Amino acid sequence: MVLVVEKFGGTSVAGPERIREVADHVARRHSVGDEVVLVVSAMGSETDELLRMAADVAASPPGRELDMLITGGERKACALMAMAISDLGVPAASFTGSQAGFHTDSSHTAAKIVEIIPQRITEAICAGLVPVVGGSQGVSDAGDVTFFGRGGSDTTAVALAHALKADCCEIFTDVPGVFSADPRIVAQAQRMDVVSFDELLEMTASGCPKPAMRAVELARTYGVELHVRSAFSWMPGTKVTGATAMERAVISAVTHNTGEAKMTVSGVSDKPGVAGRLFRALAEHDVNVDMIVQNVSVRGITDISFTVPCAQAQVSRAVAEDLINDLGINAVAADDDIARVSLIGAGMQTNPGVAARMFETLADAGINIEMISTSAIRISCVVRAAEAERAVAALHSAFELDVEPAQRPIGY
Amino acid sequence: MVLVVEKFGGTSVAGPERIREVADHVARRHSVGDEVVLVVSAMGSETDELLRMAADVAASPPGRELDMLITGGERKACALMAMAISDLGVPAASFTGSQAGFHTDSSHTAAKIVEIIPQRITEAICAGLVPVVGGSQGVSDAGDVTFFGRGGSDTTAVALAHALKADCCEIFTDVPGVFSADPRIVAQAQRMDVVSFDELLEMTASGCPKPAMRAVELARTYGVELHVRSAFSWMPGTKVTGATAMERAVISAVTHNTGEAKMTVSGVSDKPGVAGRLFRALAEHDVNVDMIVQNVSVRGITDISFTVPCAQAQVSRAVAEDLINDLGINAVAADDDIARVSLIGAGMQTNPGVAARMFETLADAGINIEMISTSAIRISCVVRAAEAERAVAALHSAFELDVEPAQRPIGY
Repeated sequence: MVLVVEKFGGTSVAGPERIREVADHVARRHSVGDEVVLVVSAMGSETDELLRMAADVAASPPGRELDMLITGGERKACALMAMAISDLGVPAASFTGSQAGFHTDSSHTAAKIVEIIPQRITEAICAGLVPVVGGSQGVSDAGDVTFFGRGGSDTTAVALAHALKADCCEIFTDVPGVFSADPRIVAQAQRMDVVSFDELLEMTASGCPKPAMRAVELARTYGVELHVRSAFSWMPGTKVTGATAMERAVISAVTHNTGEAKMTVSGVSDKPGVAGRLFRALAEHDVNVDMIVQNVSVRGITDISFTVPCAQAQVSRAVAEDLINDLGINAVAADDDIARVSLIGAGMQTNPGVAARMFETLADAGINIEMISTSAIRISCVVRAAEAERAVAALHSAFELDVEPAQRPIGY
Repeated sequence: MVLVVEKFGGTSVAGPERIREVADHVARRHSVGDEVVLVVSAMGSETDELLRMAADVAASPPGRELDMLITGGERKACALMAMAISDLGVPAASFTGSQAGFHTDSSHTAAKIVEIIPQRITEAICAGLVPVVGGSQGVSDAGDVTFFGRGGSDTTAVALAHALKADCCEIFTDVPGVFSADPRIVAQAQRMDVVSFDELLEMTASGCPKPAMRAVELARTYGVELHVRSAFSWMPGTKVTGATAMERAVISAVTHNTGEAKMTVSGVSDKPGVAGRLFRALAEHDVNVDMIVQNVSVRGITDISFTVPCAQAQVSRAVAEDLINDLGINAVAADDDIARVSLIGAGMQTNPGVAARMFETLADAGINIEMISTSAIRISCVVRAAEAERAVAALHSAFELDVEPAQRPIGY
């Protein structure tokens, strides 16, 4: 007998048929003796519809009210799911985030979990019920409803799996697992049977859309075993573990992200504290800076480039322009016509040839590299957005990701 | 400065335009110094849509889950309303029934209020906020979300007005007030400026759809002054008070109800305990019996007729048929092709001629009376459903309700 937390995303519960299909899966699993706890997202496009309604009644809706509104989506889905499961003869009960014991801070629309006291969930499990928990929500010290943000249901599932000491957390979604590249771009992209937390974290940080990065971080911190799989085929997907297999292939995946803009602040004095001032100011405006590259200084003057989410390009530009006099900045430029293409692989730490092969491959394809940044298990290049798909395909092929994992070379 | 609880029904908040219009009304009222607490129903047909979704996923959804689902409608409406009010510069905050301090029993889908501890609402008022409370909902001792049933938002508003010691409870709806007859049937129906609790209670019990009877009962018990008015014209409507004006007109209104069925249980032994057995069995099946008429006994055998809501006709028939042997019942008949037409008036207690004039009026119109029942301020006749509208019009005219209240005779 195992205790498993299963999370179902919005497309997996988009309508009555989908809800009944998931309920059927849960009832079968329950009938073989497994203990199942469900976490569900809002149905289909419900969150978007609720946000549109908010925009229809208010120019700038308060965060507290947005959270009250939006969490209703998950609440509706979990009530319907509990009904559908009960209807199959398996007793089930829905729980809001608050009822499930999710205590958060008061950062409305982006609340952070402070503590989980899942007493009602534990009691429900002991009573033979299937608890169905509304994702991405909790309650603040003030007693207000809070929302974790988009994609927060993955976080709910991982945190609950940790709090309940579950054997595994399964993230059911509309794709069969984690792939070596986006299958919409690379036809030969391979589903990965296993991926390490570190690799998956770099992948989600550099464009792989699922699961949500915050949940992967949490799973990595607490060692919660993840299984990313399809709610449509019900086939095994990708297992995410702390361990990295010995002697495995150097490179695991190629990711890409076209949702960022490249900011360039030129003519900055190259003296201590200048970069600190700039990025402190950006942080104070909640800008998520990603890659940062500083050129070699020429006569005490340098350029700093960094990437930010496209939605934050405008505020980033304003922040940088505010500092023009203070920091002696020459010009601030924003360019959202870029893409970041990344190579991920735990094996690249001991394979110095990887970067060289990546740059050669892009050069052979006639693709210019505008920025480079690296981590222990990732190399990212910024290229023109129009060339992103070609870059991904070329790299996927060059690093022999088109073949099954077991057939791949273990060094270059 | 007054403290007023304002309740807005589903059509009053059916869409973004309506929500913004109500918010505008609240902001104006707040700006002249009044303290306003809002109670809102679910938007338009949302409750029906949620019930349809429940039916799509489950044949018999558990009450606990239905309540979790349905209360989401009011919660959504109150969050949107709080946003819209805030957007006009008047700080507002939404509260679920639980947050507003509504403690109920555990009778899911028809929960009863046990206690109200409106601490957060009082604090919000003191902080200068407009609290917006989700109607028809609370929390049980078990910590589960409960729903009061359809029309329960009126109950929320009246109970909250009592708990907050508000000066008045205003029920905003899609009609301009309480009328002397249904204006869709009687063109000359007059809006009543004032009506007593007792009269309104008899009216809602005999077919007047708004406000909900349960809320009128509560208002009468606790002496909460009601004002039933239009959220579309914003004009004064009908005030409901404990007092009855001296020397007022005998008759206030004619109501009708086509939603009931007439059950006839014939051939019952006329001995002590028989009727008790029958109505106890019906009560145990939660059947709301209304009019009860027992014929004069002939040779120890009698017939009992009663009316029940059409939706309960089938279960009532089954309950009665189960007792056929025990009670020596001959036959059980159900007839849902009936209507109840009622005359309401506090003045009829001292005017014995009212009943006679009612029966004569119906006879003159060629309308047959199938059952009669009376209270101190009401006379009801069951007639064929097809004749209901003609009966209402004839009575409205015969009792001179077509003229303004001040012009009516004070005796017959």
